[in-house]
Amino acid sequence: MYKERAERRIHIQPLPLRTVPAASSPGLQVCREEMSDVGRDNAPRSRPVMSHVGRSATPSNNNNDEENPVPDFQYFGLTPRSPPSLQGFLEVWGVEVHARPDDVNKAQHHTQFYDCNNLVVRRGQPFQITVTISRPYKAQTDKLWVELLIGRYPSAVKGTYIPIYLQDELVKGRWGAKVISAQGNTLGLSVLSPADCIVGRFRMYVAIMTSHGIRRTSRDKATDIYFIFNPWCKEDAVYLSDDDQRQEYVMNDVGCIYYGTSTDVTSRSWIYGQFERNVLNACIHVLDRARMPLQSRGCPINVCRVASAMINSKDDAGVLVGCWDGKYIDGVAPTAWNSSVEILLLYYKNRQPVCFGQCWVFAAVLNTVLRCLGLPTRVVTNFSSAHDNDANLHTDIILDQDGKKMLELTKDSIWNYHCWNECWMLRADLPPRYGGWQVVDATPQETSEGMYRCGPASVIAVKEGQVCFPYDAPFVYAEVNSDVVYWTQQNDGSLVKGEVKTDEIGTLILTKQVGSDMRMNITDLYKYPEGSREERSSLETAVHFGVVKPEAPKDLPKDVSVKVQVDENIMVGSNFTLALEFNNHSNESRSAEVQIYGYVMFYTGVPKVQVTDENIEVEMEPNEVQQAQVVIKSKDYEDKLVEQLTLQFLITATVPETDQRLVIEKKVTLQIPKLRISVEGEVAYGREVSVVVQFTNPLTKTLEHLVLRVDGLDFTRPDLMLFSHLPENETLRANFSVVLRRHGRWKIIGSLDCPALRQVGGELELHVQ
Amino acid sequence: MYKERAERRIHIQPLPLRTVPAASSPGLQVCREEMSDVGRDNAPRSRPVMSHVGRSATPSNNNNDEENPVPDFQYFGLTPRSPPSLQGFLEVWGVEVHARPDDVNKAQHHTQFYDCNNLVVRRGQPFQITVTISRPYKAQTDKLWVELLIGRYPSAVKGTYIPIYLQDELVKGRWGAKVISAQGNTLGLSVLSPADCIVGRFRMYVAIMTSHGIRRTSRDKATDIYFIFNPWCKEDAVYLSDDDQRQEYVMNDVGCIYYGTSTDVTSRSWIYGQFERNVLNACIHVLDRARMPLQSRGCPINVCRVASAMINSKDDAGVLVGCWDGKYIDGVAPTAWNSSVEILLLYYKNRQPVCFGQCWVFAAVLNTVLRCLGLPTRVVTNFSSAHDNDANLHTDIILDQDGKKMLELTKDSIWNYHCWNECWMLRADLPPRYGGWQVVDATPQETSEGMYRCGPASVIAVKEGQVCFPYDAPFVYAEVNSDVVYWTQQNDGSLVKGEVKTDEIGTLILTKQVGSDMRMNITDLYKYPEGSREERSSLETAVHFGVVKPEAPKDLPKDVSVKVQVDENIMVGSNFTLALEFNNHSNESRSAEVQIYGYVMFYTGVPKVQVTDENIEVEMEPNEVQQAQVVIKSKDYEDKLVEQLTLQFLITATVPETDQRLVIEKKVTLQIPKLRISVEGEVAYGREVSVVVQFTNPLTKTLEHLVLRVDGLDFTRPDLMLFSHLPENETLRANFSVVLRRHGRWKIIGSLDCPALRQVGGELELHVQ
Repeated sequence: MYKERAERRIHIQPLPLRTVPAASSPGLQVCREEMSDVGRDNAPRSRPVMSHVGRSATPSNNNNDEENPVPDFQYFGLTPRSPPSLQGFLEVWGVEVHARPDDVNKAQHHTQFYDCNNLVVRRGQPFQITVTISRPYKAQTDKLWVELLIGRYPSAVKGTYIPIYLQDELVKGRWGAKVISAQGNTLGLSVLSPADCIVGRFRMYVAIMTSHGIRRTSRDKATDIYFIFNPWCKEDAVYLSDDDQRQEYVMNDVGCIYYGTSTDVTSRSWIYGQFERNVLNACIHVLDRARMPLQSRGCPINVCRVASAMINSKDDAGVLVGCWDGKYIDGVAPTAWNSSVEILLLYYKNRQPVCFGQCWVFAAVLNTVLRCLGLPTRVVTNFSSAHDNDANLHTDIILDQDGKKMLELTKDSIWNYHCWNECWMLRADLPPRYGGWQVVDATPQETSEGMYRCGPASVIAVKEGQVCFPYDAPFVYAEVNSDVVYWTQQNDGSLVKGEVKTDEIGTLILTKQVGSDMRMNITDLYKYPEGSREERSSLETAVHFGVVKPEAPKDLPKDVSVKVQVDENIMVGSNFTLALEFNNHSNESRSAEVQIYGYVMFYTGVPKVQVTDENIEVEMEPNEVQQAQVVIKSKDYEDKLVEQLTLQFLITATVPETDQRLVIEKKVTLQIPKLRISVEGEVAYGREVSVVVQFTNPLTKTLEHLVLRVDGLDFTRPDLMLFSHLPENETLRANFSVVLRRHGRWKIIGSLDCPALRQVGGELELHVQ
Repeated sequence: MYKERAERRIHIQPLPLRTVPAASSPGLQVCREEMSDVGRDNAPRSRPVMSHVGRSATPSNNNNDEENPVPDFQYFGLTPRSPPSLQGFLEVWGVEVHARPDDVNKAQHHTQFYDCNNLVVRRGQPFQITVTISRPYKAQTDKLWVELLIGRYPSAVKGTYIPIYLQDELVKGRWGAKVISAQGNTLGLSVLSPADCIVGRFRMYVAIMTSHGIRRTSRDKATDIYFIFNPWCKEDAVYLSDDDQRQEYVMNDVGCIYYGTSTDVTSRSWIYGQFERNVLNACIHVLDRARMPLQSRGCPINVCRVASAMINSKDDAGVLVGCWDGKYIDGVAPTAWNSSVEILLLYYKNRQPVCFGQCWVFAAVLNTVLRCLGLPTRVVTNFSSAHDNDANLHTDIILDQDGKKMLELTKDSIWNYHCWNECWMLRADLPPRYGGWQVVDATPQETSEGMYRCGPASVIAVKEGQVCFPYDAPFVYAEVNSDVVYWTQQNDGSLVKGEVKTDEIGTLILTKQVGSDMRMNITDLYKYPEGSREERSSLETAVHFGVVKPEAPKDLPKDVSVKVQVDENIMVGSNFTLALEFNNHSNESRSAEVQIYGYVMFYTGVPKVQVTDENIEVEMEPNEVQQAQVVIKSKDYEDKLVEQLTLQFLITATVPETDQRLVIEKKVTLQIPKLRISVEGEVAYGREVSVVVQFTNPLTKTLEHLVLRVDGLDFTRPDLMLFSHLPENETLRANFSVVLRRHGRWKIIGSLDCPALRQVGGELELHVQ
């Protein structure tokens, strides 16, 4: 580098063959800027921004935090030497936007819970402001209007500069204002926005026409108005007709997320907290960081696609860094978070990606962002989710000749579960029937394109196999519809295809019920019943659009079957039993050579380490059922567990008489004792109670470096409590007092995290009178 | 930062609230890695790569340059203490892939021009290899097979590990090999690949089965084989039936790119050079830098989408940095390049984005990459291209009350021309009729999503308005179909809509003719004839899919019209005349107040500076035609020009009698004297001739810092010649000798670049016997 720079000084001629310098070199910032969008946001603020010169007349208007000054007095023609006489013209003494939660606007707009001093209104619905003027208003001669501006270089054709003139009647779908009261020096106005206006924070001015020019109110941040999406408004693309659903998908700020396995579903509560102080600002900041032009922020399709890209940090220095390695060095383990609020506010404050997230954290944060902006949104969990597989309908598992999984060759994995979001909207870009719920997925996928954004993909299109429509429908289709194909590698490197299991992926799709913490099975929104005519037709459609379906080999012998059972609710640290049942359906004797391999597994389906290797032989008379048991000992797995405590058993059985080969996979999720949260004192509004959190170490070793995190809405609490160690069998006890400041349902959610034991959680629900 | 690190040492507990540190801080590399894909490639090689642990069993196989070692002898079971006796088993003494251009394979595969020592074959078509073995081959007992591997952790189900067994007959669509000759110790094999196999560089081994294990040939880079797409193969998705078209769109390595304005089209020749030494490696490197998984490199849809993202440096440290500022500090001006070869090899060598490109450079480099990989591709130019406008059908021009353009408010621009690529392929992901030419655009667009990749979008779908199909069809539709809307801003900030011009965008779409340097008008591939029933129906379809069409205001008076003419071929530095013709179509007298504004303009339609401001008044009798002239003087614009030398005139006329307002825009591209290239000596194969390049300074000032660039194929030449200055009216003369080593058509392309005068080019075409 030094040498090149020296050359520049000697030659007069430019050195035209220069390329962009390495990231470590100083200078030449312009090129580096252009190279990397990430660079700009992480870099110190002094770095020059890439020139827009030659490309556009003004820099793009993509930041809600930036503004140009607007003149208080805008002369027609040249500015005169002395101030002109404005006698007789109106003067504006004050503007009141009625932003208090108990005032007229917020309740009507369902925005009373936003902890925000400014007015928050939903678009497509009128709101009231009061202007105090210097004398009574004369409708015939005074010309007064309201101006809304957003961003830099606002422009009327882009919807970023909006002059709103007084008119006799408001017209749906257009900006307008009308006088609803004129008493003395005050003028009450009703202002209407169209149902497709930009979502964000607008600056407001009141302007008066004089003979010399336009006189405006000064910039006053107290009159800034936030416009958000309006699911209550029929004309809005996000209109949702059912009020219970609106209460759940827009207004509810605490929810449940499902995880575990389809046979052993667990739920955890989550604080979405979309109304908390500064969360709305943080959500707008997320769109600003994506440099999303303000003019396109009125379209829910664009907003949720950009948000899905920005929640993960890939490409764009977004909110959360994904990490699955089980170590989480220098960050918070994904299992330790309870609340989107903490994550969003950290990102908003530090302007840097927060460490770390996994699928449910990405989905929960996206849920907060979209609900906060007024989009009806929910978190859904797909159990046994095919992943990272390039929109093809097969997940390939390669076994060696002993029936053991060949880890280096088995690249596809089936996640125990995967969380994404659904967002409710019209899809004006697609044929009419594909509106409704749309899949949006913020978890980065390692596919051919490296999908660091996904969706919106129409759920109906996925169900019907119409995967030719944007965005990313083939990927969602494969996540819920893939087959599992078992291959056996031969000595010469060739693969022999074995069983193809068609019912192991997308076994169950859940979301929280409207109005309760129960789960709702929405599998039928994504899939027709297994074996139905519609299912076949949907598959044919998807295959027609390039999705690849594996073919099952013909004529595989099938006269022996195996079932595997394990106990329910196995507590971590205990021994348990795999119960195998072999069934000979033939009229001849059969035997089976059975291999049982057990692995500690990440929830992504990736095996970490093998913990079991057992062989048994079974002899069966014609039509006989035989049973066998394998005991899995705590000491074999306890030290090797990763968070989410999942073990996977792979049972392969070979029937020598027929060369039949059976493969069964069984996942077991171990239980951890819950964090016990209780409250002492009378539960009533305004009262102080004491919250007690307790946890007993279930492992046969001392836990170290424990972090207790307690989250909830509307109460003051310690953010974190740190404990250096917790010996075997001992109980940790923490307490603190809180004042109850929320009516009705009230939740406290706790998590305890330490390197040896993750995913310890607990919650408490109270009803405050 | 220091403080935080110090805290870490004191506390035992982890500090869970850490976020990703600023880019300048050392340490914590893992988080930074995850944050930015760009980081990885620009950073010193020592930086740790983000862990895949927990996410996948093996790292992803996304780099054609990486490999795992393969054992020369792979034992079945445990490795014995002493080497086993292999007497009686075959030994492989040598493998010959017949890679010489004059040998059997390359001519059959149309790859004889690749300047590459390795074998390059097209998929879906057999090629021959010869194996020399230790004794004659016994078909009954010897088990010999060929193995092809690509990347790390190759796997048979992903198509990255391919064992090819000998069989009696080759089966189309499957990997296979058959013996075509067995004479003494040599074995001739014909090897067939399927027409959808991965495109890239495979390692080849020959394996022999012994009783103790598999014996393999050693790693030998000379037997590496490149597989590329095959437009000659009916089964390949990129099959193109016409041989002339294949010669043009796959085999031609020199082409023409059109630019200028639709009324004044200019062409420049361009060296695509897809067969040049190391270009194929550079193209594969481009896909590697995108970290495109090898398994998805067989799909032309994916390959051209990834390539479109990687040609520009946005997001992903791709090939070329876009810059439009006219200064091009520390880089080559986009107008100075003549060849994709120089750009791709610079990127391949330095592994850093090359500065700078604009649309035709992006398109030309993408053309090279795709032709090199075997995809039929062409560069097309759309004249008057709507850009950066979020897939809406309007480009808004805002005028003040004097008819002058309000630059701060006019954000949309119409590019004089825009270049993109078309790529020929089946679209298995769409309904059947949308195959054929697909638009792929590598120029980064400043739209709502920040599109740094675009396409493939079906040209037929664009023509029919079926913009609901991926990828990015609405944007292409808007580029060729937008309307221009003129607005006038009033004193109170409101806008009044004036004329809507429906025939100013996408006026002409050109590409080079097959087999000649003539241009071919392909506008009808994108659009039905203006005013036809099909055009209306296509528009209705597009509007149905969310494209927004502006409405023209009704009842605008239209009884006066204006035409503007300028001289053709105006040389830079000369005065010229705007001839205006006013036509009064009414039966009454009319007058017109006419304002004429002239701007120096970038080719992106962005005005740089105003150079003309004239007012004239015209009086017209009923049905009279009046003429007027405005002279534009060289001294007014000469010092203000930017490259491509375009002036834009905006003529607004107001007819006071009817309040009619007319707006006409006229673009004028000035001519520069060409670089004169001539040859001295006898033009015959193998002869040395002297090439002379001359240029006379046309400006009335001294040119400084001149860089002369000469490109062409198959001859040695100086890369660059630098000149410190060239006084007014003087002639620069450079010469060098070359040996003619190419039969047939032969082109030399030169460009001369200096800050005061860009886009000086010239070329010479010879036919060598």
